[in-house]
Formats: sequence, C-alpha cells, structure tokens
Amino acid sequence: FRTGVPEVVYGKGKDVEEIIRATLKLAEKNGIALATKIEDIEKLSDEIRKYDLKNYHIKINKKAKTLIIKNKNYEIKKIGKVGILTAGTSDIPIAEEAKDTLEVMGVEAITSYDVGIAGIHRLFPALKRMIEEDVCCIIVVAGMEGALPSVVASMVDIPVIGVPTSTSYGIKITPLLTMLHTCSPGIAVVNIDNGFGAGVFAGLIAKKIHK
Amino acid sequence: FRTGVPEVVYGKGKDVEEIIRATLKLAEKNGIALATKIEDIEKLSDEIRKYDLKNYHIKINKKAKTLIIKNKNYEIKKIGKVGILTAGTSDIPIAEEAKDTLEVMGVEAITSYDVGIAGIHRLFPALKRMIEEDVCCIIVVAGMEGALPSVVASMVDIPVIGVPTSTSYGIKITPLLTMLHTCSPGIAVVNIDNGFGAGVFAGLIAKKIHK
Amino acid sequence: FRTGVPEVVYGKGKDVEEIIRATLKLAEKNGIALATKIEDIEKLSDEIRKYDLKNYHIKINKKAKTLIIKNKNYEIKKIGKVGILTAGTSDIPIAEEAKDTLEVMGVEAITSYDVGIAGIHRLFPALKRMIEEDVCCIIVVAGMEGALPSVVASMVDIPVIGVPTSTSYGIKITPLLTMLHTCSPGIAVVNIDNGFGAGVFAGLIAKKIHK
Amino acid sequence: FRTGVPEVVYGKGKDVEEIIRATLKLAEKNGIALATKIEDIEKLSDEIRKYDLKNYHIKINKKAKTLIIKNKNYEIKKIGKVGILTAGTSDIPIAEEAKDTLEVMGVEAITSYDVGIAGIHRLFPALKRMIEEDVCCIIVVAGMEGALPSVVASMVDIPVIGVPTSTSYGIKITPLLTMLHTCSPGIAVVNIDNGFGAGVFAGLIAKKIHK
Amino acid sequence: FRTGVPEVVYGKGKDVEEIIRATLKLAEKNGIALATKIEDIEKLSDEIRKYDLKNYHIKINKKAKTLIIKNKNYEIKKIGKVGILTAGTSDIPIAEEAKDTLEVMGVEAITSYDVGIAGIHRLFPALKRMIEEDVCCIIVVAGMEGALPSVVASMVDIPVIGVPTSTSYGIKITPLLTMLHTCSPGIAVVNIDNGFGAGVFAGLIAKKIHK
Amino acid sequence: FRTGVPEVVYGKGKDVEEIIRATLKLAEKNGIALATKIEDIEKLSDEIRKYDLKNYHIKINKKAKTLIIKNKNYEIKKIGKVGILTAGTSDIPIAEEAKDTLEVMGVEAITSYDVGIAGIHRLFPALKRMIEEDVCCIIVVAGMEGALPSVVASMVDIPVIGVPTSTSYGIKITPLLTMLHTCSPGIAVVNIDNGFGAGVFAGLIAKKIHK
Amino acid sequence: FRTGVPEVVYGKGKDVEEIIRATLKLAEKNGIALATKIEDIEKLSDEIRKYDLKNYHIKINKKAKTLIIKNKNYEIKKIGKVGILTAGTSDIPIAEEAKDTLEVMGVEAITSYDVGIAGIHRLFPALKRMIEEDVCCIIVVAGMEGALPSVVASMVDIPVIGVPTSTSYGIKITPLLTMLHTCSPGIAVVNIDNGFGAGVFAGLIAKKIHK
Amino acid sequence: FRTGVPEVVYGKGKDVEEIIRATLKLAEKNGIALATKIEDIEKLSDEIRKYDLKNYHIKINKKAKTLIIKNKNYEIKKIGKVGILTAGTSDIPIAEEAKDTLEVMGVEAITSYDVGIAGIHRLFPALKRMIEEDVCCIIVVAGMEGALPSVVASMVDIPVIGVPTSTSYGIKITPLLTMLHTCSPGIAVVNIDNGFGAGVFAGLIAKKIHK
Ligand SMILES: Nc1ncnc2c1ncn2[C@@H]1O[C@H](COP(=O)(O)O)[C@@H](O)[C@H]1O
Ligand SMILES: Nc1ncnc2c1ncn2[C@@H]1O[C@H](COP(=O)(O)O)[C@@H](O)[C@H]1O
Ligand SMILES: Nc1ncnc2c1ncn2[C@@H]1O[C@H](COP(=O)(O)O)[C@@H](O)[C@H]1O
Ligand SMILES: Nc1ncnc2c1ncn2[C@@H]1O[C@H](COP(=O)(O)O)[C@@H](O)[C@H]1O
Ligand SMILES: [Mg+2]
Ligand SMILES: [Mg+2]
Ligand SMILES: [Mg+2]
Ligand SMILES: [Mg+2]
Ligand SMILES: [Mg+2]
Ligand SMILES: [Mg+2]
Ligand SMILES: [Mg+2]
Ligand SMILES: [Mg+2]
Repeated sequence: FRTGVPEVVYGKGKDVEEIIRATLKLAEKNGIALATKIEDIEKLSDEIRKYDLKNYHIKINKKAKTLIIKNKNYEIKKIGKVGILTAGTSDIPIAEEAKDTLEVMGVEAITSYDVGIAGIHRLFPALKRMIEEDVCCIIVVAGMEGALPSVVASMVDIPVIGVPTSTSYGIKITPLLTMLHTCSPGIAVVNIDNGFGAGVFAGLIAKKIHK
Repeated sequence: FRTGVPEVVYGKGKDVEEIIRATLKLAEKNGIALATKIEDIEKLSDEIRKYDLKNYHIKINKKAKTLIIKNKNYEIKKIGKVGILTAGTSDIPIAEEAKDTLEVMGVEAITSYDVGIAGIHRLFPALKRMIEEDVCCIIVVAGMEGALPSVVASMVDIPVIGVPTSTSYGIKITPLLTMLHTCSPGIAVVNIDNGFGAGVFAGLIAKKIHK
Repeated sequence: FRTGVPEVVYGKGKDVEEIIRATLKLAEKNGIALATKIEDIEKLSDEIRKYDLKNYHIKINKKAKTLIIKNKNYEIKKIGKVGILTAGTSDIPIAEEAKDTLEVMGVEAITSYDVGIAGIHRLFPALKRMIEEDVCCIIVVAGMEGALPSVVASMVDIPVIGVPTSTSYGIKITPLLTMLHTCSPGIAVVNIDNGFGAGVFAGLIAKKIHK
Repeated sequence: FRTGVPEVVYGKGKDVEEIIRATLKLAEKNGIALATKIEDIEKLSDEIRKYDLKNYHIKINKKAKTLIIKNKNYEIKKIGKVGILTAGTSDIPIAEEAKDTLEVMGVEAITSYDVGIAGIHRLFPALKRMIEEDVCCIIVVAGMEGALPSVVASMVDIPVIGVPTSTSYGIKITPLLTMLHTCSPGIAVVNIDNGFGAGVFAGLIAKKIHK
Repeated sequence: FRTGVPEVVYGKGKDVEEIIRATLKLAEKNGIALATKIEDIEKLSDEIRKYDLKNYHIKINKKAKTLIIKNKNYEIKKIGKVGILTAGTSDIPIAEEAKDTLEVMGVEAITSYDVGIAGIHRLFPALKRMIEEDVCCIIVVAGMEGALPSVVASMVDIPVIGVPTSTSYGIKITPLLTMLHTCSPGIAVVNIDNGFGAGVFAGLIAKKIHK
Repeated sequence: FRTGVPEVVYGKGKDVEEIIRATLKLAEKNGIALATKIEDIEKLSDEIRKYDLKNYHIKINKKAKTLIIKNKNYEIKKIGKVGILTAGTSDIPIAEEAKDTLEVMGVEAITSYDVGIAGIHRLFPALKRMIEEDVCCIIVVAGMEGALPSVVASMVDIPVIGVPTSTSYGIKITPLLTMLHTCSPGIAVVNIDNGFGAGVFAGLIAKKIHK
Repeated sequence: FRTGVPEVVYGKGKDVEEIIRATLKLAEKNGIALATKIEDIEKLSDEIRKYDLKNYHIKINKKAKTLIIKNKNYEIKKIGKVGILTAGTSDIPIAEEAKDTLEVMGVEAITSYDVGIAGIHRLFPALKRMIEEDVCCIIVVAGMEGALPSVVASMVDIPVIGVPTSTSYGIKITPLLTMLHTCSPGIAVVNIDNGFGAGVFAGLIAKKIHK
Repeated sequence: FRTGVPEVVYGKGKDVEEIIRATLKLAEKNGIALATKIEDIEKLSDEIRKYDLKNYHIKINKKAKTLIIKNKNYEIKKIGKVGILTAGTSDIPIAEEAKDTLEVMGVEAITSYDVGIAGIHRLFPALKRMIEEDVCCIIVVAGMEGALPSVVASMVDIPVIGVPTSTSYGIKITPLLTMLHTCSPGIAVVNIDNGFGAGVFAGLIAKKIHK
C-alpha cells in the first residue's frame, strides 16, 4: 500500500466473520490493519475471542465501531500530533473513528469533545491547548448547523478539516453545506460521517511535516 | 388592514409607474405605505418627481430598494426598539429592508453591520449595546454559511429572527438550512432575503410588548 | 445557563438510563430539567421508578415523549401565555413538546388542536379565545400542506411561529416550504418537528414582555 | 385532432414569424388555433398586421401572451362554464392563458382575481357567484405558498384544479408541493405555470358534462 | 360534511383499535365511512370481530388496506362510472384505494390492471371498453417512469387523473414529474400514492355530471 | 486518439476564433474534426471565411450548432447505420448534434423527427423503416416527460439510447429520470442534451458490428 | 415476448411463493425465465424444493438474489461475449444480476471484480483480457464516486455501459451523476442498481452483432 | 489579521471602484492585498491607471479575474511549494485564483493544466515533477465528472485538495459530490469554484511545514 496510508476494511454490510478475517489478512500483510463502521460491534467483540490472535494486539473501540489488529512485532512510527474537536456528544463516534485512523498512522490525537456553539466557552481553552501541543491541523466534527469549523478557523492559523455528521435530525446535508460555504478561509471538508477520511488526510499532513 | 401590519407593494416584476401609483393609493388609504424589492430604484427616483406629492414625505432607500410614502399629517406611533445585525456587507440591503419596514411600524432599529464570524470581535460590543438599548428582539441577516444567528442566540436571552440571504455564491439554500438546524434554541427564521417579513414579525413583537 | 432558556436532554439515540441520569443531573443543577424526543417512553416510565426521586416531581408526557424533572423546592415563575394550534391530530405530539417546554419556562399554553383548513370552522372560536386570553404569540403546528399558519397570520396582529411536522406522508419538506413562502406577513418558522425550539422562542417573547 | 382538444403552438423559443405561420396553418386545418407563451408579444402584435388575415378573427392577449386565430366561418360550440380564481395579481397571466384555452374549447370562464389568503374576505363572494353560475369545476392559480386551492376545496363540492405559478420569489417548487399535499380532498394539479393544461383539463370536464 | 365528499380515517400511524373506533363513529354520523392506509390490515381483520357491528356492513380490502363501514339502512346513491387503469401489478393497491373511495361516493369503477407501456397491447381493448361504458374520466395509476397517463390522454377526449406510485425502486419522485410534464394535454395529477384523493376528485366529476 | 472516437472541441464558453483554430488543429492532426455547442454559430459562419481552408471541406450545421472540418484527402470509412428519433421539434438540435458526430465516425443516420407520444401514429412507419434499413441501434431524443424511449424499446429488439433534452419548461431533470426508470428493458441513457455522447456511443456499437 | 429480451419477475415486495409461481409460469411459456431482486433468497432456496421441477434446471444465485428456471429441453443459443467490471466488492451483487441476465440471453460474461480506482493496477490486465476475448461491450458497475466507467472508456474503443450502485454510504445519486457527466465519450448509463437493465442492453448489442 | 492568512476583497457584485479602493486600503494596512472574482476585469484594468499607485506593484490576472496590490517595500516570505492540476482547460481560471492566493502567502505553485481522465497519459509526468519538487500538497481542480482528485490521491502519499468547478454543463453539484465520495483516502474538498479557499488551505499546510 501507498506508504503511510492505512488499508481499511469498511464494515458496513459485512458480517462479523468477514470483517475479522479481512482485517487479519491485511494485518498479516502490513503489520497493522483497521476496520471501520462495524455494525454489530458487540458480536465482533465476542466472536474475535475464537480466533488465534496471540501474535496480535487487538483494540476494539465500541464508540467508534472500529477494530485495530496489530502484529506484536510491528512498531508504529510516531509522526506528530493532530487536534480533534466535536460540537456535541453525538459527534464523538466519528471523532473516535478519525482518532483510531490517526493511531494506525502514528499520529497522536489531542481531543476535546462537546465544545460547540451552544457551549462555546469550553472552546477557547481547548484551542489554546492544541496550539501549545503544536498540532499540525485540527479536525472539527459537527452535526446540526455545522458552524463550529468556521468559528475555529477564524481563530487559528492552521488547517481545519471539517467533518459533517448525520447525527442531527432534520435535513442531513445541512452541516456539509455550512462547512463548504464558510466565510473563514482555511477549511477543507470530507464527506458526511467520514471520520476515516479526515484521519487519513490529517495523517498525510503530519507525515509531510515529519519528513 | 390588520392594525399595525403595514400593507406593502411588492416591486419585483412591476414597472416604476405601477409601483408609485399603488404605493400612493395605499398611502392615501392608510396614511403611510411601503414598496419593497424595487428593481429600477434609480428610475423610480427620477420618475417620482413628476408626481404631485406635496402633502407627502417621500423616503427612497437605494440600498434597500424601498420607497416609503407618508402623509404629512400621519404620525407614526413609537412602539419600541429592535436590533439588526448583518454578517457581511452584502447582507446590508436586506437588513435595510427590515429597517424600513420597522420604521413604518413605529419601531426604532439599532443596527450593527458586518459583524460575522470572520470578524467576530466586532460582534460583542454590538450585542452589548443592543442589550443596553433594551431591544425586544434581534434580527440577524446572514448569507454564506449563515452561522451568525446561532452564535448570537447562544449569548442572549431574547428572541433571534434569522434572515438568510442569497448574496453568497454557491448553493443558495445553505444559510436557510443552517439557521433551521441551529443547536442554540431561541431562533426562528423567515424566508431567504425576506427582510420585509422579518421586519413585520419583529414589529409585532414590539407592538405586543408596547401594548 | 442563560436565564430563562431551559437546558434540555435530546433523547434521540440515547438509552433510557442515560436520559434519566442526564436529566436528573440538570435538575440538580438548575432546579428543573427537560428531556425531549425520548424514543422508548414506555420503558422510561417503568425504569424511572427504580430511581430515588422523592425530592422531585416527575412528569412524563407520553404523547410528547418528554420528561420533566423538577425539584419540589423549585418554583416556576409565571411569565405569561402562549397559544398553540395544530392543523391535525398527528401534529399533537409536537404541539405537546412545545407546551412542556413552555411549562418549564413558566408560560401557560392555551391549546386548540385539529383546527386545520379541512375543518376550518373550528379555527375561529379557538383564535377568539386566544386573543381574549391575551396570548403574546401563537405557535401553529402543521404538516401536509402546512397552510394553517398563513391563515392564522392573516387574521391576527400577534406573531405566529410556524412549526412544520413530518407526520404527513409525501415529501417531508413541503410544510416547511409553505410556511417560509407565506404571503401573510407576521410568521417566522422553526425546523421540522422542532416543538422544543418553538417553545423556547415563544417563551423568550413572553419573558421579554413580562420583564 | 381529438375532438374538442385544441392543438396549440408553444411559443417559447420560437420567433414571431414561426409562431404566426404555425398558428395560421392549424387554423386553416381546424378552423381555430391557439399559441401560448409568446415571448415577444409586442413584436407579434406588430408583425401580424403584415399577414393577409381578412378571413380570420385575431385575438391577442398581452397579459396571457397568447394568440387566437379563428376562421370567420368557424363557430365555437358553447359547452358550459368554468370558474377561475387567482391568489395574487401576478398569477393573472397564467389564469388568462387558461381562460383563452377555454374560449377555444367553447367554455365560458367566470373569473375572480387576487382573492388569496392575504385578502381572504374577497374569496367568499367570488365562490358564491361561481356556484350560482353552476361552473363545472374551478381552476385556482396561486404562487408563493400556494394554499388557496386547499381553502377553496374545503368549501365547495366541485373539482378544484390547482395551477402553481413561478411568479413568487424563493423556491419555485413550493406551491406545487403545497397543492399536492393538500388535506382537502377534491384537488388535482397541473404543472407549474401550465395554464393551458389546466384549461384543457377543465374543458374536457365541461365537454363530458355537456354531452 | 360537504355532501358527497366522504370523510376518511387516515390509518397510517394509528393502531387498529383507534381506526375501528374512529371509522365507526363517522359511520354512525354519516351512514358510511372509510379508513385508508391501514398498516396492520390482518390484525384489523381479526380485531373487528370483537365489535358489535350487527347493524353494519363491513368491507375489508386487504390489497387496498381499506375498511368501509356502512349502516345497513344507508343506501349509496349511484352517480356514474369512472375508469381505473394501472401500469403494473404493484400499482393495484393504490388503484383499489381509489376504487373503494369511489364506491363510498356511489361511483362504479371499470378497472383494467397491468396495461402499462411494457404490455401496451393490453391497453387498447381496456380503453375501448371504458369509452363504451361511458366513464366520465379515467384514473391512471403508474410508478417507475409513469408514462401511461400520457399515452392514455393522447387517445381519449375525457379527463385523465394521474396517480404516481412509490412502488418503483429508484428516485421516488420520477413518475410524479413525468405526469406533470406531459405533452398530452388533458391530465391533472394527485400526490404520490394518493388513491383516495384521485377517487374523491373523480367522484366529484361524476357527481357534477349526474346532477 | 482512440481509433474511431472523434476528438471534439466543446464550444461552450469559447469564442469563435478559439473554436476555429482548435478545430483546424485537430483536423490537421486527424484528417477530420468536430466542434459542438457553438454559442454564436452565425458569427462563426462569417469569420471562418477569413481563414485559408482551401484544402478542407467545411460543414456548418446551424441547428445543431456544430462545425465539421475535413481534409479533402481524408476519406471517412462507412461503418453502418443508426436510427435517430425525436419526440418534438425542439429536440431536433440535439438530434442533429448526434447525427454530425455519427457522420464523422462514418455512420449514416436514418432520422425521423417529431414522432412523440402526442403524435404517436407517426412513430410506427418511422420505426418500420429503421428496422428495414437494419440500423444497429436507435437514438431517441426527448424532453418534457421523456417517455418516447420507453415506447420505442417496448417495440424493438435493438438497443435504444435515450437522450433527455432541456428544451422543456418545468423541472429540467424530468426526462432524464423518466428514461432511467423505464419499465421497458433495452435502454441506456446519456446526460441531458448530450447529443455528442449519444452519437459516439452509437458509433462505437456500429464500429463493433462492422469489424 | 420480443425475441431475445427475457421476461423477468421483479422480486421486490413479492413473497417467495409468488416469485416461484410467476417464474415457473414464464418458464413454461418461454422455456426459460428469470427472477431478480429476491428479498428472502434463503427462504426461496428452501421453499423451491417443495415444487415439482424435475423437468427444469434451477439456478439460484445468492449473491445476485436471482433465480433462473430453465426447461431441460430449452437450449440457449450462444450469441457472443460481454465484459463485466466492478469497482469494489460491494458492487458484485449487481454485476452478478447482469451476468445472470446475459446468461438467459445466451451471452457469456467475462468478469473481473474489485478493480476500481483505489486498486487501479488490477484494471489493466482485466481490460486486456476482455479485448482479447473480443467482448462486444463492457458493463462497469461502480458505487461511491463512480469514476471507473470514465477511466475504462478513456482506454477502449468499445461501448461502456455504466451501472451506478447504491452500496456506498453518502448521497446515493452520486455515482449516477458522475457517470452521466463523464468527459470520456463512449458511455451510456442505466439506473442505480439496475444490473438487469444493463444486462438486457448489453445482450441486445451482442444479438445485433451476432445476427 | 491572522498571520499568514491573506485578507481578500470578494469582487462579485462590487463595482470596479469599490474593489480598487477596498484592496488598496488592505494593502496599506497589511503590505499586500488580493481581490478575487472581479466581474469586469477589463474595466478594472483601465480604471486602475487613474489611481496613484507608484508605491505599489500591481498584478492583474485576467484569466483568474484577480488583482494583487503589493507595497514595493513589502517582501513576501517564501514558505514552500504546492502543486496545482486541472482536468480541463476550462478549469484554469479557478486554478489561477488558487495560484494567486498562494503567491500572496509566499508559496510557489507548480502547475500542470488539462491532464484529466480524457488525456490521462499527461498526468503521470506532471505528478512525477511535483513529487520531485517536493510539493507539500496538490490542489486538483476539476469539473464535469470530477474524478481526477481520486486518481491523483490513489497515486501519491501527500494531501490532495479537491476543487470542483461549475464550468461543466449539466448538474453543477456533480464534481463536488464525486470528490466527497472518493474511495481514495487522502482528499479533502472546498466549495465549487473556491480557488481562493483551496489556496489558503494549501498555504496553511505549507506554512505549518515551514515553521
Ligand atoms: N420584500 C418582500 N418580501 C417578501 N414578501 C413581500 C415583500 N414585499 C411584499 N411582500 C408580500 O407580497 C404581497 C404583495 O404583493 P402584490 O399585491 O403583488 O404587490 C403582500 O401580500 C406581501 O405580503
Ligand atoms: N426537541 C429538540 N429539538 C431540537 N433541538 C433540541 C431538542 N432537544 C434538544 N435540542 C438541542 O440539542 C442539544 C442537546 O443535545 P445533547 O447534549 O446531545 O442532549 C441542545 O443544545 C438543544 O439545543
Ligand atoms: N456536445 C458535447 N456534449 C458533451 N460533451 C462534449 C461535447 N462536445 C465535447 N464534449 C467533451 O468535451 C471534451 C472537449 O473539451 P475541450 O477540450 O474543452 O474542447 C471532450 O473530451 C468531449 O468528451
Ligand atoms: N474567491 C473567493 N471564494 C470564496 N470566498 C471568498 C473569495 N474571495 C473572498 N472570499 C470570502 O469573502 C469574504 C470577503 O467578503 P467582502 O467583505 O464582501 O469582500 C472574506 O471573508 C473571504 O473569506
Ligand atoms: Mg484559520
Ligand atoms: Mg438566545
Ligand atoms: Mg398576522
Ligand atoms: Mg371540495
Ligand atoms: Mg386526452
Ligand atoms: Mg427493446
Ligand atoms: Mg471508449
Ligand atoms: Mg493519496
């Protein structure tokens, strides 16, 4: 695979056995592998015990609905830091999907959740900490009106990656449109709920800087 | 007409003569009348001089593309104050349409323009002044991502009336959707570019309080 | 929290325990708290008995799918009246969500349900009573063609808050569009099914008048 | 042609000469012919004088942008009455297009314009007169929120044909959606601005009754 | 109720007991009543036996998901005939909903199902029979590309009422758009799956002719 | 270039000089070249005389808004026949664009225009002739409701290529949706107004057969 | 039926018994029959054993959710080859639906799955083999961004039939739009998930060549 | 202003004098300033000569419709390289807008235009050169089907910024949707035609690396 871009098993529509086997196969090939959007993560949690995985570290993230399988001999090279913010609590699963993607790429995530416009006073210390940690970019995950990336981008001089979520009720395309139409330059956007895509994109920035 | 709700001549698609005559007729009946969305306001400015209007005060707002005709004997009853904010400079025409509507209803507008997210530091003193002036509600006019009403509503305890504008390039429905999906309760919305509707709605709140 | 604007637990996607605990926590902090859009209200009804809530009044509204938890020592300050109308019977749950929100804010709701265009003769006495009760605004909840707010606004001189509902079969965005495009000035709109948002907005008008 | 259904020249995108010649050709064949949606009706008005039309009656409707050419020997058979209402004044051109279509089919139109929800008190006498004239159906032309057909259908027991118009500013599809989602049974709808289609449909009802 | 327009219980979202009781109540008032879009028609079939309905005729149409309750003393006045066509077999439930509505109004339906473009040779004899039976209009029910009403209207001189259905896979709005954009004048349309609306509209034409 | 697929100059947004020069350059390289969607075809007609093109055959199609430049020494290899139908007269420009594309590819077009559903009796002899000429496929160009390809495909056993046009008034996407949702298998579709794309696709079928 | 175009039972919304009986009836008439989009293919697999089908070959494709019933005496006439590509693994069911359709028409399918842009190096040998096998056209099945047909068409001189799939998460219409807007001429498109339609269209090309 | 993010005058809807004055004012404040989307760039070219700008370097880009005003004493700090690709020639204006934005930020652009899927062989050397020049990211500008960013991202390990353009005819949202739904991770997207936004975002990556 292109060095540094993780291969991924997209879990939607696949059953638990398929997912485990496909992820394991990638881990055998690349040392590490990721599965996302696993529909029945509880069942996967149970089933995976039946496999002989003594040479692997297994990490299951029930919120993110992700699975990481890593060979015990495989060492992830550390390549920098990325900030992750969410507007609400229901945006956290997508944020965690991005975080797990970054972990596979060797990037540390500095997270701060539930700091949206309705509770905007929590945003400032979170941003301050990210700047101090010298993150190379900030992933901002938001549903409903999706205005948080604009607010963040108006305050910082580093790239902001907007991730619209479908957690809101109403017209699902709204936060995507909001982010695309921002008046605060410095934002680019990935598709609705695409935490993995945001993670890869942020990881590629980190990798480029680290080189 | 329902007392306090101004009758209006909607200028779009009408020629200048039609507009002047229709507005004058309403002014004869009600003492005051308003025309909005006048397409050729320059021409109206010229043509209106040909009419015998010595018993009337004429006000032409070239930005808002509005005309007010008021009988010199008609006295507008003062009934309170409303705040008007815009995110950018291109939202000003719609804000001024709301302001002229409020004027006809006897409501004073406290305005502050170009205080959107990209220049958010200008927002705080503007809001402070409006609270001090004890406005009964705030009209927030915004295009592009349309996030300003959410930010305002998260800071004040008075009703916020969102007016999306079509001045942005891109997908015109975006600021409307953003405002409808707000996480900050306390916002209601009128249609895209409907400064007149926002003015009437705000004026009815003022009128209810004044009673 | 901004004084007078209720904090709320948005129940969609949350399980019953989460909802009860979060609402209780807000009630401890603020004296009173509201949860809306509770998906399994029957289960919540059962489960809540297991909690020690002897210091609290509990109100469960099965139609509205809301929960109010109020400390017995907390007194709601009465601040006025709001009218609520629905076009059909299937709009009642959203109307009741608005009503419960108003209750938390100390506003009395004068309700009249199922008075839509198809049974328009029932509308007139309902409006008459609301005017007599001196409501400060009227929330009009309607699905299908969503024309009721226009009809109401053409008859009264107080603000009308339109709430489109998704109860209709067909294209869900229809009543929202209808309300936004009204010819009867004096209407502002909240998002589809947003009874809570309409309640807060109406409550802020009441609060402003009461001050 | 199917007896009773007028052949029509659709004027959009055609130049004035094309339109005159095509309409004349149909009039030669059928005794009478109609052209609709003529873009430059003023120019057609001038140009048509150059043609030798001494055997024909010419009727140009500048509002409707229609042309009727009738052989002086052709007699239109009278087959009944249809009501036509409009919500606003800007809906009149489409109403007149329907009226001219009906004229060609031998149907008399009883019209009443500008009786929409904003001026609903004018509606009742208009409906009363149509019922007394025993119209076989009512064509209701409306833009903006498009609620008038619902109101009419809730009051009468004869078929209502809704014609949404594009004259409103805002989202053009709104009145079409409103009419399709009506709660008042007894309405069927033609496409946006399709006055001709409404006229033919109403004329076919009249014809069926007359037979 | 407006004479001749049946009052109806809209079954969607209602449980079986609610539907039976509401329909019965209307039948007590008007002699006859109709319920449509009953979700669990099998359960209603069972449950209704528990009610004392010895003074009523009960008709349950499992395809159409409708219920008719008629007092044995109530006599339906016969007022004419209407044709009903469907393009495919999956359109039959909506056609039957229209048919039951017509039955309540005293109109006989001449039906011919599955005569769409893919099997167009079956259309001609069906149309021929309808013309011979002197139907006053034809209801044409079609999903997928929705072209059948256009074909029918190009062949007959009586009004065609198009009913788009949602049975097709793909983009649900397609047959509605097709029918609205027809080149064959003589068609008006009701909303997607609105067999009831088509039935009432057709019934009103029949009633007008019968008078 | 891929043998047999014509290189093309897309004229939209280009000025006349650009188009002539680019087309000539392709003709020098390939012996023949095509330009489509030329906005000011009249001006191109004039301007092209100023160029020294004595070694070339020039063909300007004002309806199609196309230009073909062919070296006098270049011989087009004949590779078969394709049928082209249009529903209306306003679809002819797109049909002619397809025809010119086919000409460049060496395919003869058998055309029959204005044979849509409203005048369906003209369709049958046209189809008969195409079958007799042994066309390898039929391009069917239609706007408005776009139902003609379905009707054709239900009658013939050869591939039908649907070309939706934007000539209709109303919602432009309608004929595209109609064609995609056809019940008559045997149809594939190109984009709205893409006569060139339909021509190339049909030409590739002809080429494959001819080989 | 039109010779060579298979009659099909569309399984969606039908129960297993209906499907088996309808397919069998067609097989009795035509020698062979196909059912597609069978929702409960496992149940059909079990139930079909209860039928007396000793004169028939039965083929159930669980991936494609198709059933083929063929009389043992019926011989499929071989008429050529078609290529089938998929971008991802989740597009395979639709590809297999096309393949089974082709089988019924006597066309051999050369398949190569999971060769999309993300793994584009696998595309070249697949295309090479298809060209060598002299396929008459290539069906390209793709979801997500749907760009594979464009890439293929830019490399080959034979017709490409694009089949967008709904397997992607996100906005379902995306791959359809991508394919319609291709810059690589030589592509025509069928509706989302319409493997059957693509198969019939490709089969008609094969048949035309074979003749 | 946030260091490194250029302030910009958005030219759309502004007249030439407004643009020049606003840009000059920013240049006085910041040393350098940019105006984009200038509608009448020819007129601006003429008018700007009337201003006293002897202390400034003026750069007018007629393709990009941009203006840069730089104080002769202001030195742009060089901070790295970015690649810019376009699919077609009509995408060049947007690419040049991005390039000018980058210039203001001190970033050198390595450009390669017209390398889309239809001429994909030109893509490989372009990418090779960008990698050798060690660009920190690649801006890919594409209209029509918008597939180029996916192809690029599948080949390189650096961030790809997709810029959809509206130059294509057809449904304008298509390339935006394509880019959002990419299967090749490593892409983020800005709004349609937002060359300025892409430039700022890319410039912020460069700046972060350079620090
Ligand atoms: N600026 C405006 N925005 C929205 N609606 C308006 C505006 N001005 C007038 N209207 C509405 O348009 C109608 C007047 O239309 P007309 O009678 O054609 O002048 C009134 O009923 C108003 O409610
Ligand atoms: N019924 C409702 N409709 C719309 N928004 C709501 C509703 N209930 C709560 N909210 C919003 O959702 C947020 C609470 O989300 P959470 O923290 O996830 O419970 C608050 O900021 C409210 O503004
Ligand atoms: N009439 C047309 N409709 C659709 N696409 C076209 C048309 N003419 C040319 N094209 C495409 O546009 C591209 C040429 O664009 P250009 O190089 O800008 O002239 C070619 O690759 C064709 O595939
Ligand atoms: N080419 C462009 N594309 C998108 N946004 C832009 C562009 N140029 C300027 N802007 C934004 O528009 C705003 C300037 O608007 P104004 O104050 O009206 O000139 C700035 O905040 C920019 O972020
Ligand atoms: Mg920033
Ligand atoms: Mg607030
Ligand atoms: Mg009112
Ligand atoms: Mg009625
Ligand atoms: Mg007809
Ligand atoms: Mg066929
Ligand atoms: Mg090709
Ligand atoms: Mg990459």
